[in-house]
Amino acid sequence: MPEPGKTPWSGRFSATPGEFQQVFGASLPVDKRLYAEDIAGSIAHARMLARQGVIAASDAEAIESGLLGILRDIEADAFVFDIADEDVHMAIEAELTRRIGDAGKRLHTARSRNDQVATDTRLHARRMALELAGGISELRAALITLADTHPAVVMPGYTHLQKAQPVLFAHHMLAYTWMLARDFRRVKHAYKAADVLPLGSAALAGTTFPIDRDKVAHELGFSAVSPNSLDAVSDRDFLVDLTYACTLGMVHLSRLAEELILWSSGEFGFVTLDDAWSTGSSIMPQKKNPDFAELVRGKTGRAVGDLTALLVTLKGLPLAYNKDLQEDKEPAFDAVDTYAASLRAMAGMLSTMRVNEDRMREGALGGFMAATDLADLLATRGVPFREAHEIVGRIVLDCERAGRTLQDLTPDELKAASAEFGDDALSAVDIDAVVARRDTFGGTAPDRVDEQLTLAREALGRDSAWLEERLGD
Amino acid sequence: MPEPGKTPWSGRFSATPGEFQQVFGASLPVDKRLYAEDIAGSIAHARMLARQGVIAASDAEAIESGLLGILRDIEADAFVFDIADEDVHMAIEAELTRRIGDAGKRLHTARSRNDQVATDTRLHARRMALELAGGISELRAALITLADTHPAVVMPGYTHLQKAQPVLFAHHMLAYTWMLARDFRRVKHAYKAADVLPLGSAALAGTTFPIDRDKVAHELGFSAVSPNSLDAVSDRDFLVDLTYACTLGMVHLSRLAEELILWSSGEFGFVTLDDAWSTGSSIMPQKKNPDFAELVRGKTGRAVGDLTALLVTLKGLPLAYNKDLQEDKEPAFDAVDTYAASLRAMAGMLSTMRVNEDRMREGALGGFMAATDLADLLATRGVPFREAHEIVGRIVLDCERAGRTLQDLTPDELKAASAEFGDDALSAVDIDAVVARRDTFGGTAPDRVDEQLTLAREALGRDSAWLEERLGD
Amino acid sequence: MPEPGKTPWSGRFSATPGEFQQVFGASLPVDKRLYAEDIAGSIAHARMLARQGVIAASDAEAIESGLLGILRDIEADAFVFDIADEDVHMAIEAELTRRIGDAGKRLHTARSRNDQVATDTRLHARRMALELAGGISELRAALITLADTHPAVVMPGYTHLQKAQPVLFAHHMLAYTWMLARDFRRVKHAYKAADVLPLGSAALAGTTFPIDRDKVAHELGFSAVSPNSLDAVSDRDFLVDLTYACTLGMVHLSRLAEELILWSSGEFGFVTLDDAWSTGSSIMPQKKNPDFAELVRGKTGRAVGDLTALLVTLKGLPLAYNKDLQEDKEPAFDAVDTYAASLRAMAGMLSTMRVNEDRMREGALGGFMAATDLADLLATRGVPFREAHEIVGRIVLDCERAGRTLQDLTPDELKAASAEFGDDALSAVDIDAVVARRDTFGGTAPDRVDEQLTLAREALGRDSAWLEERLGD
Amino acid sequence: MPEPGKTPWSGRFSATPGEFQQVFGASLPVDKRLYAEDIAGSIAHARMLARQGVIAASDAEAIESGLLGILRDIEADAFVFDIADEDVHMAIEAELTRRIGDAGKRLHTARSRNDQVATDTRLHARRMALELAGGISELRAALITLADTHPAVVMPGYTHLQKAQPVLFAHHMLAYTWMLARDFRRVKHAYKAADVLPLGSAALAGTTFPIDRDKVAHELGFSAVSPNSLDAVSDRDFLVDLTYACTLGMVHLSRLAEELILWSSGEFGFVTLDDAWSTGSSIMPQKKNPDFAELVRGKTGRAVGDLTALLVTLKGLPLAYNKDLQEDKEPAFDAVDTYAASLRAMAGMLSTMRVNEDRMREGALGGFMAATDLADLLATRGVPFREAHEIVGRIVLDCERAGRTLQDLTPDELKAASAEFGDDALSAVDIDAVVARRDTFGGTAPDRVDEQLTLAREALGRDSAWLEERLGD
Repeated sequence: MPEPGKTPWSGRFSATPGEFQQVFGASLPVDKRLYAEDIAGSIAHARMLARQGVIAASDAEAIESGLLGILRDIEADAFVFDIADEDVHMAIEAELTRRIGDAGKRLHTARSRNDQVATDTRLHARRMALELAGGISELRAALITLADTHPAVVMPGYTHLQKAQPVLFAHHMLAYTWMLARDFRRVKHAYKAADVLPLGSAALAGTTFPIDRDKVAHELGFSAVSPNSLDAVSDRDFLVDLTYACTLGMVHLSRLAEELILWSSGEFGFVTLDDAWSTGSSIMPQKKNPDFAELVRGKTGRAVGDLTALLVTLKGLPLAYNKDLQEDKEPAFDAVDTYAASLRAMAGMLSTMRVNEDRMREGALGGFMAATDLADLLATRGVPFREAHEIVGRIVLDCERAGRTLQDLTPDELKAASAEFGDDALSAVDIDAVVARRDTFGGTAPDRVDEQLTLAREALGRDSAWLEERLGD
Repeated sequence: MPEPGKTPWSGRFSATPGEFQQVFGASLPVDKRLYAEDIAGSIAHARMLARQGVIAASDAEAIESGLLGILRDIEADAFVFDIADEDVHMAIEAELTRRIGDAGKRLHTARSRNDQVATDTRLHARRMALELAGGISELRAALITLADTHPAVVMPGYTHLQKAQPVLFAHHMLAYTWMLARDFRRVKHAYKAADVLPLGSAALAGTTFPIDRDKVAHELGFSAVSPNSLDAVSDRDFLVDLTYACTLGMVHLSRLAEELILWSSGEFGFVTLDDAWSTGSSIMPQKKNPDFAELVRGKTGRAVGDLTALLVTLKGLPLAYNKDLQEDKEPAFDAVDTYAASLRAMAGMLSTMRVNEDRMREGALGGFMAATDLADLLATRGVPFREAHEIVGRIVLDCERAGRTLQDLTPDELKAASAEFGDDALSAVDIDAVVARRDTFGGTAPDRVDEQLTLAREALGRDSAWLEERLGD
Repeated sequence: MPEPGKTPWSGRFSATPGEFQQVFGASLPVDKRLYAEDIAGSIAHARMLARQGVIAASDAEAIESGLLGILRDIEADAFVFDIADEDVHMAIEAELTRRIGDAGKRLHTARSRNDQVATDTRLHARRMALELAGGISELRAALITLADTHPAVVMPGYTHLQKAQPVLFAHHMLAYTWMLARDFRRVKHAYKAADVLPLGSAALAGTTFPIDRDKVAHELGFSAVSPNSLDAVSDRDFLVDLTYACTLGMVHLSRLAEELILWSSGEFGFVTLDDAWSTGSSIMPQKKNPDFAELVRGKTGRAVGDLTALLVTLKGLPLAYNKDLQEDKEPAFDAVDTYAASLRAMAGMLSTMRVNEDRMREGALGGFMAATDLADLLATRGVPFREAHEIVGRIVLDCERAGRTLQDLTPDELKAASAEFGDDALSAVDIDAVVARRDTFGGTAPDRVDEQLTLAREALGRDSAWLEERLGD
Repeated sequence: MPEPGKTPWSGRFSATPGEFQQVFGASLPVDKRLYAEDIAGSIAHARMLARQGVIAASDAEAIESGLLGILRDIEADAFVFDIADEDVHMAIEAELTRRIGDAGKRLHTARSRNDQVATDTRLHARRMALELAGGISELRAALITLADTHPAVVMPGYTHLQKAQPVLFAHHMLAYTWMLARDFRRVKHAYKAADVLPLGSAALAGTTFPIDRDKVAHELGFSAVSPNSLDAVSDRDFLVDLTYACTLGMVHLSRLAEELILWSSGEFGFVTLDDAWSTGSSIMPQKKNPDFAELVRGKTGRAVGDLTALLVTLKGLPLAYNKDLQEDKEPAFDAVDTYAASLRAMAGMLSTMRVNEDRMREGALGGFMAATDLADLLATRGVPFREAHEIVGRIVLDCERAGRTLQDLTPDELKAASAEFGDDALSAVDIDAVVARRDTFGGTAPDRVDEQLTLAREALGRDSAWLEERLGD
């Protein structure tokens, strides 16, 4: 731990903070990951200052080459961050001045840490959003592949975790691609929210120097320039939007994780996770645990906590910058890291697991899941649906008590339950026929799932194109 | 409390739930506000069923006229909701059947409560989103009016609640319009998230009846049809998105509320809330309390709580419908109602409060707020900014100890601090000049704030046009 | 909706609030449930005032009889609350003055709404805590009964939802009684937190009247008197403690609910919920859904949301009373009501469900659950445990690949895996022996579970005694 | 990053996890702070195993001396934790075996990571609780000192951030000691919740070895032994209780922080923070910012987030251990670290700040704060309070419009407002008299505050005694 030293505002103060204050007040351990963005922002700022005649061209050149040297050192792990510098911005600027002298001090002309922090964080948020977009796309691709390679596997569909109606496994997998498509959209919104340049707002009121904000925005690839300096240094919506995207995304992954955990259980047995995506027990030799799915489910808590943390921190803050805002980055970065890793873990599990088609089909044959079709059959023949429902409900109850399935029933027994059942009633309970019969748009019939697969691929294609375009920047 | 009675699934059961279960399981107290959407959805469904030949045209007509009668009765407060019906959907369908007989029972053909609930809730979410969009627009308009009618009022700008640099009151008000513009965008996203028809997904797997989902979507004004039946009945993202928009919107209002509370205090005295938007004390006769601002700030808690509730409820649910989802509506509706009322309260307070221009200007003269400009002056003359900062810091410390202001200093004293201060240094501390000097885009100089006012009006105009278009539907 | 009228502070104001403000500012819809506590508090206050000579004895008598009349009317549903009165306190006081004239106005001497609200809420919190304590006790009793009446049922014990080791069903049920014992303790703490009289703190600084706070405390059954008036009117810890107790309690119930949902599924089939505690589907005649367990799990979200709401509302409030605090009651009451009903629902489900002992035992025979005992056997014979674990791990893998169980193995095969397995190795895998072997304190061996049952009964007895004592007050 | 290697369950698996899985699944970066507890727990376990004859005495001795060597190396920073070991428990055990051979492997006999993790975490939670208890006590002591050394300073008391009634600064400081006393109690409860030994529960069902759990409990200083093995490995209530204590504690600190921020503003000016507990601005030389108070307020968000994270993670988990539980430690540790540092920061700020007594008194003279006493005077003379309130309300309104204070009024003017005002009415508005008049228990009169100071000291003394007793263990 370094000794407390001279602070950037030491002129006004007659005492310096002690070591505890230094550590308590420092954001360096969290914000040092912004180094590349900080350097990019400073270079753009210095170039503009020189172009506008605020600093000499030679100073700008010294600044740029000094910063690029620091960048190289950081990336080569040859740069020691010193917590006495409080944050990544001071750490880099102090080193720059050590390296190039007074020119380094001129870099801070016409800007403040308030707009500098906001700029760096927005640049980083944009980058994180694109990384998440990539992770979401990969998971969608894994789901689409599963659907594509298991086109005809029938499994039980559940409501209330009770067998309800048979569905195609492909249909079930594709359901998640649509959730993920919405998650992609949220990440995209967060990208756009971040895509506004705050630099030039100075501490809170704008600067007295004749800067050119559009040029800086253009150089850093921002689509817009913030129109109000007070808002620019106070606004953290882009981080909240990003964290929200991660949080709801994690909630979705927790649903998929829950299903993988259920399906991996001995009772369901629908899938077998790959050994590389399972763990054992230190005490029970037979165990094979879906640890990674459990971790994704468990980490959903931290994402919800991160979002809560951010919202609580922002509550009730007057304009403009308050130090509370320093607490913005850790929850946002944690949510992003958690979501990114969880997306990868889910893609890893899904693309390597074994789909136990026989267990799925076997499961689909139990549970009286054709009952709805029996009722529908009656409805088609003019029986009001509520009445049909009651009739079939009684049939099911009788079967259950007698330990029989719907397939065990004879046409005569059915006719006894309702005269509207004809000789062809038993065809209503064939499990493949039950699936095939749901053939309106969005239904689980094979041709509909095929159609849906095409749509899912197209949607992924459109989103990937957007992402490629941004990554090409 | 009604007697427990026959349930819609009584065929399969040998016992009926007791009264406690009825109340515990019922969503009617919360979902009865969906009655108009339920009826609209049922009429569209019935018409389509008839057009497709699934039910007779005469049945559809009976259904439609029966439902319209029920709608009239509900709106005339002549309809008694019975908790034995569990939810608004059963309540209306049961009454319909009482009124028109068997045709009423046929309405439920080719749909399930799962897709019916999702449809009604989406219709309602769309409507709530538009109402919120209207409320946001009104508050933006109130802020714009304040900025417009107080163009030249200087006030202290704060960071860390310490006086930092003088700003225009208009600039401060406009800062909030940009927050609100982002809030509008979030509400708009939530609208679009809701704008997809789930009806036709039946319980989870699609329906066996030859329905036409596009027709229903068109009739109900939905822009798209859900492509996966499992997702359609499980998805509540549109409610989470809406609740999130409300929550971050409330966090923003809490910041404005905090400022109104501070500004109404005797210590600040920047504004005087109208008597109609204040309350007194039952014990202290002199009190005039900013109760409504405090309530808005306090209600931010419930909005964060609502969002948390929704996210927690969704965590870890397997597909497809689970009863947990019944808990989706209350937090979402509460967040919407809270936000809508808070928007109105803030607009009411802002549009009636008195702006105490003299107190603001007086406040702007204190606090050494021209210190930055003194430092900038040195920087312009070639002193590295960090050094200029230190020099001025010492000047401020000396003044503070001597009980003097920056305006009390003589040119000679300034020159003693730095030779770069010329005879014109004192002009740097004129408060209007300080404001006027910040004249880059987004800064607080009067012409820049004017420019910004135009942009704020245009942004509001664009959003209002979007809203008008939707309301015209 | 009533017309806006004269407010209790109208002297100072030149305008009255409109209808919107009235509704937005009113707490009456939420706090009217405090009527009994408000009246009890007022009677104690009036009696004390008379005893201290602050008001006439005749006034105190008029107040008491007037208030008792109002109490009777409220409980007979013959009292119309008027939202123009803002809260239950004003509603009752205004009516009192209408009934008994000037004496009614004297009731407010030496108190403020700030300490009155705090007093009423504490009285109510105490009562709610005792009700919850009762609900927790009933659920514990139901679990104890289940354990008691199913002493010898073996079921699979799970970790990671994978079969791990066989346990007694009674052991599993008793696990929840210890959670609930901790929940009881939290509710008890919340009771004690509420058990302090704030009345006499007036608005914030104490009162100028010669009141006797101890007498009031004694009459209302409070154990202590608040030592600081500022804290007394600002403190809501007792509500947060109560809400926290409810929230963690609900999280516990969500775990039990999850198990009931799993166990009710066709795949597990360990229990069958009673028809009175299940629901059906409006479309699928065969369905029997664990709706009430799902609701309990889903309602956990609202409890977490309630706690979050309270914490967020309290964040950053300066002393003493702020209107934000009005938002304290709704989340706390909602959490209490949710938890109370959920406790009842769980007790109802558990005490009526059928335990499918055969399915449990069948489940316990699968899954290689005796593997640990095989490893332990080797360890007992000197093989380091990590090595024993590896040996048995390989045995399990071989069995799994060959579709065999541990019981299918011959002594020779075992000896081939490790020379330390003697002829008696197979006895290690008998499922009842496996259970019986875990016979240290807290283990699942029948005699240990018996011992535990006694402890659980004793713990419940102690808690019930505490509760009875309080209810006897 | 280490290469993926052999895992502790590699016997059963045909593939090893890759590097991503290793990092994603590892808890080592978080749980390595448990090293001392892990070693203490293992030594107690080994001693007991030897005493019970389960392992040889020589093995136990080798284990103990090996572990003590590892402890020394860790504390000398001479131990490299390898993420391939997944967690601190494996890291230490693997190293032990490298150092002492097979005896090291025998340490794991009769325990599982599930009960080992629970044991270590409980030991650590107990220690953290005591540290927090110490931090709370120090802050209480700082507040008591402030009250003690500023006995007669009058300041405005606020409700709704409006001046309400004058109070003693000492009274205001003491208000926080009672909050902190409640926080102490919550931490104490969390300590007791952790003070139960789970070791001996093995993976979930107890162990087959003849262990002596009481001996281990005694050696590790646990007051009780867990009575149910399933609960013992699933229960994280003690961490939630601790996190809850931190969270509500942080909410309290956020209130004090808010006041320090307000009081440090130019507008209030009640206190001046020490330079060592303030920071400056990199751009505005005059700024002196209450950064540390803002950080405490801002960090309240992360504490609320931590609590939310834990609750969400636990929701819906079936018994017994699930990997989700690995996510328990990070939020709990973060909440503890945040709270401990914030307590220290608040104590630092309070014990060094300058109390600006003149500004406080000046503030107390404004704002018509004697109005209540005028009304009380009328009430004493028989005017119903509501009426007195109205009369004084009108007086205040007249004064405000005329720019006069209550002290400017003549006796005749008062008599004109109400005949009940006598010649002595003006004495009612003397600010010291107003304070002195509130002299019932808990009021702000100097003698009452004196009495309260004694009580606060006694309460702190009792809590400190409890803490000393535990630390002496």
